[in-house]
Amino acid sequence: MGKKCGLMVGVDLGGTSMTAVALDARGRVLASRKRSTRPELGPEGVTLRIAATVRKLLKDLGKKSKRVQGIGIGAPGTVDPEKGVVLYAPNLGWQDHPLAEMLSRLLRLPVTLDNDVNGGAVGEHVLGSGQGAANLVAIFVGTGIGGGVILDNRLYHGSCGGAGEVGHIKILAGGPLCGCGRKGCAEGMASRTAMERDMRQAVDSGRPSLVPDIMARMGRERMTSRVIQEALREGDPLMREILERAQNCLGLLVASLVNLLDPDCVVIGGGIADRLKDEFLEPIRAKAVRHILRAPQLKPVRIVPSRLGDHAGSIGAAVIAWNRLAGINPVDS
Amino acid sequence: MGKKCGLMVGVDLGGTSMTAVALDARGRVLASRKRSTRPELGPEGVTLRIAATVRKLLKDLGKKSKRVQGIGIGAPGTVDPEKGVVLYAPNLGWQDHPLAEMLSRLLRLPVTLDNDVNGGAVGEHVLGSGQGAANLVAIFVGTGIGGGVILDNRLYHGSCGGAGEVGHIKILAGGPLCGCGRKGCAEGMASRTAMERDMRQAVDSGRPSLVPDIMARMGRERMTSRVIQEALREGDPLMREILERAQNCLGLLVASLVNLLDPDCVVIGGGIADRLKDEFLEPIRAKAVRHILRAPQLKPVRIVPSRLGDHAGSIGAAVIAWNRLAGINPVDS
Repeated sequence: MGKKCGLMVGVDLGGTSMTAVALDARGRVLASRKRSTRPELGPEGVTLRIAATVRKLLKDLGKKSKRVQGIGIGAPGTVDPEKGVVLYAPNLGWQDHPLAEMLSRLLRLPVTLDNDVNGGAVGEHVLGSGQGAANLVAIFVGTGIGGGVILDNRLYHGSCGGAGEVGHIKILAGGPLCGCGRKGCAEGMASRTAMERDMRQAVDSGRPSLVPDIMARMGRERMTSRVIQEALREGDPLMREILERAQNCLGLLVASLVNLLDPDCVVIGGGIADRLKDEFLEPIRAKAVRHILRAPQLKPVRIVPSRLGDHAGSIGAAVIAWNRLAGINPVDS
Repeated sequence: MGKKCGLMVGVDLGGTSMTAVALDARGRVLASRKRSTRPELGPEGVTLRIAATVRKLLKDLGKKSKRVQGIGIGAPGTVDPEKGVVLYAPNLGWQDHPLAEMLSRLLRLPVTLDNDVNGGAVGEHVLGSGQGAANLVAIFVGTGIGGGVILDNRLYHGSCGGAGEVGHIKILAGGPLCGCGRKGCAEGMASRTAMERDMRQAVDSGRPSLVPDIMARMGRERMTSRVIQEALREGDPLMREILERAQNCLGLLVASLVNLLDPDCVVIGGGIADRLKDEFLEPIRAKAVRHILRAPQLKPVRIVPSRLGDHAGSIGAAVIAWNRLAGINPVDS
């Protein structure tokens, strides 16, 4: 009984959707919920929505809901983990929102707050493919590129909580415009959004591609990971070319991170990685290895796919809650 | 008496020259020596040369030489600080050289070993312009670009001792060849060597510049920092253009580092920075600030010039010896 029988809820709050899981002390997910975020409701509205989602999750848990000891939230943007305040979340349009306090009042449970991709990094480190790595960098490729840095087995926040913005490491001086409004960022070259922009531009300029048809057939307005996968399956040369360009950039990003931080392990996750698996990872790894500076007698860095997939962020948020509220790390059994 | 009256010797071992200082517990330099390295003598020969340089320094110290408690060495390349072994130093052509043990036997004093630019970062952190910064990145621009990372007030080594290779962070995918044999590294675009290459190519292709004349007049075979300074003073447009290109790259490098690590402070040092001072730093800072992602209400990162100049590495090596052998940090008085 006691700690070992407790549960923590983890919530990964994204710009589009939120995912909540209940995690036991062995690192097992007992229940999960997914729901749209609807950022247009504003910080208070979205906070109520998180509370409602957690209440549903508690209901799913039935009697076990009594064992929930706390909630960990991962929010997109810069947070103050000590104060539980979302300082700046451009995707949500939030500034200085006291999310942890408000949610704690609504749910009468202690709440910890961190950045969403920091959560993903912690999840992969404690329960995913980064287990055993004292120093780890996680990169999540989706509409943007986010990441988290674990140093000496601890999440590294930096001086103002802003560390881990791997998507805004520069890869190509003067390169394409990034969503952040600046040029040359990895995110502006290798995110799904960047690939979609490159695809649209190429198609608009008259290059043939199956992608528009596939999107129409699938009823998608965006070039989702499933669309990318289908285009590759059908042998679309333009899709392959655009993907390879992104993979080259990600390989350089991985090399830069390894040359700077000399981690044991780099975990690559996010929607495309989860869907394409080795087809996505292998060229990134090959490119990275060629650009990593390393004394020849040292063991090579592990470059591995995320294992927790879509749940990395919510599981990680729950792990952070386990760490901070109960002082333990859930252990994969 | 005791610790407070002790001295540590610090040696910065470079590919061309070595610098040795004697540092007291207040962080004051009591004596210094500089001498060519002559890497062609091989690892044993160079080690004997270091020992001879330290003996001269001890002689300079006179009676005070009895107070020397140990020696810190900063070596160029990957080192194992625990074992005191230089694992891989391509500039010197060394692999697996047990430098600390050999030197300790020759001089009958305890010897600590670290990377040379790690030493520079520690020097600037403890006694230079990075004082008070819990998280700091130091960048030294010279024939190459090296750096060191201080996190949570401690030197960060990474998993295999290879951390801090800021010069091999990629800035321009597919860009010019770097000394490491790969393309697109910061070092291949913004080191003094890269600027000299760009200058030679431009002059060879017929662009006018005062630099060849200045080099001839000064009797220099290389485009040294003094040559660069003189060319700028005489208003050479090509020199300014090449310098600006390097500064833009360094600005992007600083931004990448800040976006990833969110440090309190970035210190920029090395020969050109020491010589050109604000003329070198200001454009780098301006470029970096435009590319740093940061919540608007947070305090900006400090981007400052090195204060210890040419002695950063040797002072830092001595500080590391103070840390490891005496368990204290010398304090600037």
